[in-house]
Amino acid sequence: MSTSAKKRNFPLDQVRRHLEPGPIVLVSSRWRGNENIMVMGWHMILGFSPALFGCYIWEGNHSYAMLRQSRECVINIPTLDMLDAVVGIGNSSASSGINKFHEFGLTPEPALSVKAPLIRECYASFECRLVDDRQIDEYGLFIWEIVQAHVAANPKCPQTLHYRGEGEFVVPGSYVSRHSDFKPQNL
Amino acid sequence: MSTSAKKRNFPLDQVRRHLEPGPIVLVSSRWRGNENIMVMGWHMILGFSPALFGCYIWEGNHSYAMLRQSRECVINIPTLDMLDAVVGIGNSSASSGINKFHEFGLTPEPALSVKAPLIRECYASFECRLVDDRQIDEYGLFIWEIVQAHVAANPKCPQTLHYRGEGEFVVPGSYVSRHSDFKPQNL
Repeated sequence: MSTSAKKRNFPLDQVRRHLEPGPIVLVSSRWRGNENIMVMGWHMILGFSPALFGCYIWEGNHSYAMLRQSRECVINIPTLDMLDAVVGIGNSSASSGINKFHEFGLTPEPALSVKAPLIRECYASFECRLVDDRQIDEYGLFIWEIVQAHVAANPKCPQTLHYRGEGEFVVPGSYVSRHSDFKPQNL
Repeated sequence: MSTSAKKRNFPLDQVRRHLEPGPIVLVSSRWRGNENIMVMGWHMILGFSPALFGCYIWEGNHSYAMLRQSRECVINIPTLDMLDAVVGIGNSSASSGINKFHEFGLTPEPALSVKAPLIRECYASFECRLVDDRQIDEYGLFIWEIVQAHVAANPKCPQTLHYRGEGEFVVPGSYVSRHSDFKPQNL
């Protein structure tokens, strides 16, 4: 968890480079003085500029009301070295009274544009504001605009965690570039 | 591309095991006698049962009108051995008159419940019907119900392709199980 100090401002129209591959993310929230973290795997990019991001959140999650009422969150991307924390967070609830930052050794850091905290140990953090809540009741679908992006320069090839259900994760092994085979407009 | 003969019926409420990790997919369509394939990376699971799946499709894609009018598609998951075809499809358009199945050595196979074809060479194929078109105009967001699922028994750990923009793909290296650390209701 040594990438914490290296996060830098990152272009909003390029956040797809980190979210489109499909990693699970840690959603941090803050509402009325309480902070929380949840694990989330059902999400997608919805636009480059503005940088739109959609995700499904189950109403049974403790974070659901905090996110809906605060209308803000931070989407943080964890890596393999954080697997214990990820599994722990995914199997606990703030309704039991625990503080997940403290319980799982994570560090909240102030964001620039929202009150929800960044998670220092994650290599990438995206500050979000809720821009459309009309699909929440029917689909649990929150549509966010990413308003600030922070990404560490290293690692170049982060060991993100991709969830496949049943407690199993897929971890990247190699990065393959076919850049020269693409037409510029298709990159 | 030897998994073609091995696809079997797969439980609809478990399709998240293949789509949640975030692979790019090949969307096959059929409308008025024409078949087409497009590459797509912006998608998410939206529900277990019914098995709901959301995806973004740009209106500039030749497939856009075919999908919107036929209200059907098949979502096929390619693997690393198909990278040439994936890059080729991503950099060509049916508007040029080419047949992408023929051009890229892929084999259409009849689906069970939709007219769009399965792609034989993909290890997994999910037949879909459009169930909600109300978010298309504003967000390009198609919401589908997966009505048939076909998945090969092997490979157990498919070398799916996860796109990160700029012509670069992430490929799975390892599968990590923490099944025993999960509460049953959280799997």
